[in-house]
Amino acid sequence: MHTDLVAALDIGGTKIAGALVDGRGRILLRAQRATPAQEDGDTVMGAVEEVLGELTGSPLWNRAGTVGIGSAGPVDASAGTVSPVNVAGWRDYPLVERVRAATGGLPVELIGDGVAITAAEHWQGAARGHDNALCMVVSTGVGGGLVLNGQLHPGPTGNAGHIGHISVDLDGDACPCGSRGCVERIASGPNIARRALESGWRPGPDGDTSAAAVAAAAREGDPVAVASFERAAKALAAGIAATATLVEIDIAVIGGGVGKAGDVLFAPLRKALADYATLSFVRRLTVAPALMGTDAGLVGAAAAALSRQPSSTAERVAG
Amino acid sequence: MHTDLVAALDIGGTKIAGALVDGRGRILLRAQRATPAQEDGDTVMGAVEEVLGELTGSPLWNRAGTVGIGSAGPVDASAGTVSPVNVAGWRDYPLVERVRAATGGLPVELIGDGVAITAAEHWQGAARGHDNALCMVVSTGVGGGLVLNGQLHPGPTGNAGHIGHISVDLDGDACPCGSRGCVERIASGPNIARRALESGWRPGPDGDTSAAAVAAAAREGDPVAVASFERAAKALAAGIAATATLVEIDIAVIGGGVGKAGDVLFAPLRKALADYATLSFVRRLTVAPALMGTDAGLVGAAAAALSRQPSSTAERVAG
Repeated sequence: MHTDLVAALDIGGTKIAGALVDGRGRILLRAQRATPAQEDGDTVMGAVEEVLGELTGSPLWNRAGTVGIGSAGPVDASAGTVSPVNVAGWRDYPLVERVRAATGGLPVELIGDGVAITAAEHWQGAARGHDNALCMVVSTGVGGGLVLNGQLHPGPTGNAGHIGHISVDLDGDACPCGSRGCVERIASGPNIARRALESGWRPGPDGDTSAAAVAAAAREGDPVAVASFERAAKALAAGIAATATLVEIDIAVIGGGVGKAGDVLFAPLRKALADYATLSFVRRLTVAPALMGTDAGLVGAAAAALSRQPSSTAERVAG
Repeated sequence: MHTDLVAALDIGGTKIAGALVDGRGRILLRAQRATPAQEDGDTVMGAVEEVLGELTGSPLWNRAGTVGIGSAGPVDASAGTVSPVNVAGWRDYPLVERVRAATGGLPVELIGDGVAITAAEHWQGAARGHDNALCMVVSTGVGGGLVLNGQLHPGPTGNAGHIGHISVDLDGDACPCGSRGCVERIASGPNIARRALESGWRPGPDGDTSAAAVAAAAREGDPVAVASFERAAKALAAGIAATATLVEIDIAVIGGGVGKAGDVLFAPLRKALADYATLSFVRRLTVAPALMGTDAGLVGAAAAALSRQPSSTAERVAG
């Protein structure tokens, strides 16, 4: 049988999405459930199985040869387990084995969600054509992934590119991860909003205290809002420069809600990058907004699976 | 003709060393000149040609199939040029072309000196058997290199692993590289000594104000000397943890003069690593002292060259 499709799963703390995806990254069928994040592990798995059930029940299913999973982390690809911070019932949960069982024994490829986004941006988005790239999601948290030598670099456990939790301020504020001064602790949406509020910024009549509201205020010239984005940009720049200095990337792609702030983020980010990325071999580094939309996780999980599928018809897969 | 040897060059600000190396990393012939670091570029190249002349004049020369160069950086492997900070006459100097001309057209492999040390430690030293490793030299400067997925990762320009110039203190002291709070700015030997002196440490009757003297004082319990090594250990830990979080390494090997300080460095380093390397997939990370001696640069340059030599007899080569 010709297997020209892959099944993709995108598992987060809010929703569990599934799809059948073809070799060009087109989604032919999709299914979705809310993540019962407060329930026990088997209940969460039940939601995954419902999503998979919609896929396996389709006449298209017999064209699927592999399953790709992008999951909220940490994941452990070598053990086939996941321990998503926001899904309390899953700790070292044997997701790969359960998904294999639910799909009649198909091969399963597991990667972290930041790595999945990266696979999607490299395949069809802003990192396309770049052999060495960092792709980031700056949102409630800060995640990411790496492309090195033209290949996705998930690392042995599927978590590589975890730029949100590198320290750029070794004496800085404690981070929930246990470390200090992490990029996420300074640059995530909630931290941008927190810092603005602590420095005297006040929301408008709608009471919106999100990072998007701070971005809107910054766009209108509010100096406290501007300063909070500049601080976030500085932390992102230090993290991106560190990554370029360590592994030689030539582009950093930034997506997620904060990534959508536009010039309010990108102008100070480019300025700060010039300050931190100083060595000759990192000076050509560019930053660009992400191009993939909300399906990036699914498309990226599909890309990772396609790269493992020998009979793949993928035309060009970041793998 | 059977080419079972490679020619290796180790080019630094103090000396230019050359050797013929076999597939087991044994040095069969060596030559050396002082680096005329203050002279013009052609004079420096003259010293390199003298070293190569001793090699090409040997009856062993016709067994050499490739040349490997590990050079003080920055290098640009894609352009074949070098711009060593401490060799003023070489800026974008076409070293690869000149070495090829001086060796009758042999293929030439150029990498940075930190990458060369890493190739040596992975081939025969403390990183042997590790598929994902960071190797560092902590000395007058702080350099390094990476092994990823079992392969040396020089990056497109041969400079990857440049951990000395990632910022771990984004508001910290200005670094000569133009950035701030770089690992080298906090953890190099001269900075360890400077910080101890600034905090009131005084050398013994011999007037030795080197980092080795600070290490000796720390070993005898001098609190200021201890504190300066603890600060260096913290910066190294933040940098090592960042590297592990970004690319998933399982060992960090530390060589160079400061690396020889023993427990004065390694005890606070292991403690600080537990503070900064907090995510599940980096917690198993270990640190170890380097095992290769002063020939590491030559052996590593040979390893990089052997990995490109199709007829290689190397039994196991990083790269």
